[in-house]
Amino acid sequence: MSEAVAVLAPAPPLANVAEARFAGPRALTLDSGQVLPELTVAYTTYGELNAARSNAVLVCHALSLDQHVASDNPVTGRPGWWDLMVGPGKVFDTRRFFIICANVVGGCMGTTGPKDINPATGQSYGLSFPVITIGDMVKAEAMLLDRLGIAELLCVVGGSMGGMQVLEWMATYPERVVSAMPIATAAKHSAQNIAFHEVGRQAIMADPDWCGGDYQRHGVVPSKGLAVARMAAHITYLSEAALQRKFGRTLQDRQHFSYAFDADFQVESYLRHQGRSFVERFDANSYLYITRAMDYFDLAADHGGVLAGAFGKLKSRVCVASFTSDWLFPTAESKKIVHALNAAAANVSFVEFATDTGHDAFLLDVPEMFATFGGFVSSAADHRGVKRVG
Amino acid sequence: MSEAVAVLAPAPPLANVAEARFAGPRALTLDSGQVLPELTVAYTTYGELNAARSNAVLVCHALSLDQHVASDNPVTGRPGWWDLMVGPGKVFDTRRFFIICANVVGGCMGTTGPKDINPATGQSYGLSFPVITIGDMVKAEAMLLDRLGIAELLCVVGGSMGGMQVLEWMATYPERVVSAMPIATAAKHSAQNIAFHEVGRQAIMADPDWCGGDYQRHGVVPSKGLAVARMAAHITYLSEAALQRKFGRTLQDRQHFSYAFDADFQVESYLRHQGRSFVERFDANSYLYITRAMDYFDLAADHGGVLAGAFGKLKSRVCVASFTSDWLFPTAESKKIVHALNAAAANVSFVEFATDTGHDAFLLDVPEMFATFGGFVSSAADHRGVKRVG
Repeated sequence: MSEAVAVLAPAPPLANVAEARFAGPRALTLDSGQVLPELTVAYTTYGELNAARSNAVLVCHALSLDQHVASDNPVTGRPGWWDLMVGPGKVFDTRRFFIICANVVGGCMGTTGPKDINPATGQSYGLSFPVITIGDMVKAEAMLLDRLGIAELLCVVGGSMGGMQVLEWMATYPERVVSAMPIATAAKHSAQNIAFHEVGRQAIMADPDWCGGDYQRHGVVPSKGLAVARMAAHITYLSEAALQRKFGRTLQDRQHFSYAFDADFQVESYLRHQGRSFVERFDANSYLYITRAMDYFDLAADHGGVLAGAFGKLKSRVCVASFTSDWLFPTAESKKIVHALNAAAANVSFVEFATDTGHDAFLLDVPEMFATFGGFVSSAADHRGVKRVG
Repeated sequence: MSEAVAVLAPAPPLANVAEARFAGPRALTLDSGQVLPELTVAYTTYGELNAARSNAVLVCHALSLDQHVASDNPVTGRPGWWDLMVGPGKVFDTRRFFIICANVVGGCMGTTGPKDINPATGQSYGLSFPVITIGDMVKAEAMLLDRLGIAELLCVVGGSMGGMQVLEWMATYPERVVSAMPIATAAKHSAQNIAFHEVGRQAIMADPDWCGGDYQRHGVVPSKGLAVARMAAHITYLSEAALQRKFGRTLQDRQHFSYAFDADFQVESYLRHQGRSFVERFDANSYLYITRAMDYFDLAADHGGVLAGAFGKLKSRVCVASFTSDWLFPTAESKKIVHALNAAAANVSFVEFATDTGHDAFLLDVPEMFATFGGFVSSAADHRGVKRVG
């Protein structure tokens, strides 16, 4: 493997935007048995690793997000997606902790994915990119930490697909995890969630500009299909109550129905905007691969069908969190994780936050969540002897 | 208006498949202010109208259904969609009642809709078909009943969009309704439901074979877009529990993941089949128009913003029904209808059936539902002096 760690560009306050490159005949051996001969992991860090290397926090991102957790995304110009949670004086205090977030394998924000060049052909991978799993994402993250000289994570945290990665970390690298926070997630993807993902994939594949996955070579983008996929998914990220409160049946820029197929309702206009803006920042094939990885996720199946079996060696402190109005990853799924952790005699706490905002609540301003998560990570850090600040 | 009622063909046991044609410069004046100069209403009847004309039951169909309630659909070959409910000795006993169901305006099973010829141009309407409402559907049904010489309905019944029509009947023609059963429905379409419909419409419109609505003239069908729309909608018709029970994470015809984008999971295969089979029986533009009609439905808004105002003149007996696992038209929506009926001092009963099957429960074998509905309609018939049978 190559030893190069290239710092690409300095970013706004505290952010270090970087890449790690791994090369060699079997740079990353995947769960499918296939290999990625070359792997780039694009990541961002905030704060400084302490001398004891004991203050590292790995943030795992969700399906449509990326490594730009708390600083502007240099590609999209959008602010960091967890600005509320990560920064000086925040839950993940960048003065105390060294925060790392890597774009997942199969992604499109710098880490190797289907839009990148297949070294065997000199062309974009497209559908020749191997199907990846949550386990593969975590293996790549572990390789990055090895490269950075970080043996142990003070905390690994993430919501939704990020939470699946947290669970995978707990199962695969228990000795490297001091504490873990799987948020708004599940130990396996449900039939309903697979169904919604399949609708999105079919929408993309139905777009003639998808070109069997080969759209880059044809100089087109399956933007309509990807927009429809995003619209369908976006509904699942919000609660019915949130949609009602934000939009209800309010009309968009008009007093009366158009009696046509314009976006009469604000909620239609909002969804169309969500679809359009997603196309500008996300790769359609990455969407196929990452949703597939989530669908394949079933931690119990990987451990003889018993979820507790995944946590047999776990010594970490774990805080499992869910949200009352999340119907995509409902509290019942979090409780299954808690029951398995209890069965494995793990050190686990569980909290369900009352919100009406739905699945995306973990990205929003929920003061009780900040207080709980802040207390949890701060206590883990104290216990580990990480120096306090401020 | 023409007086022609053409009986097209005798159909299997008890079914009379027919059309009523209405012509004239303003055959049907729509809520939008536009007019349909020619209107065909395709309908099916079961049983016989009694001499007192007091035993007529109008069944109103849902979005993707049609007038073939209890007999094979001659176009698709599928059995009647409410075979369990309508027939000799069933809840709607065809030996006692005269059952009528008409394909809705804007539909594609014989009643005038966007795939039909616009007499002004000699071409298919396509998007030149006027946007219709639930109120327009009910006006066309009332015209049909006038033509059949039926002044009064012993019962008007329907689930989902059919229930919206029932509510509209109660509000617009209260003097014609002896009893009414709005099932699994709402007095207005929610933001979440509008959002799901908008995804479906965008999926259709994203298909290049939609041709701006003009696909018939181009000899193509937007089958991929319509299939995606149906797949997304179909998820909303089932509960999470039903999907879990029916499919879970079971693989389709294989022992291991394909590590590809085939339909690995049964739920994917099932959804793809739902999409494909829908395309064979439904017109994409009809889907746009009918979903739009549902989105526009807001009975309170039509009555000064107070739902009870819609029911001020109502003397009918009403049975409102919902299902515990229906998240598309949840019980809370039915309760709003019940509260408004109570506020209007109407004669209303309410029942919530415990099922785990989701919105489509009203089409399924729910014995408690049959018993309740059977008792309700039988009691209404006894009270109205309709002769008993058997």
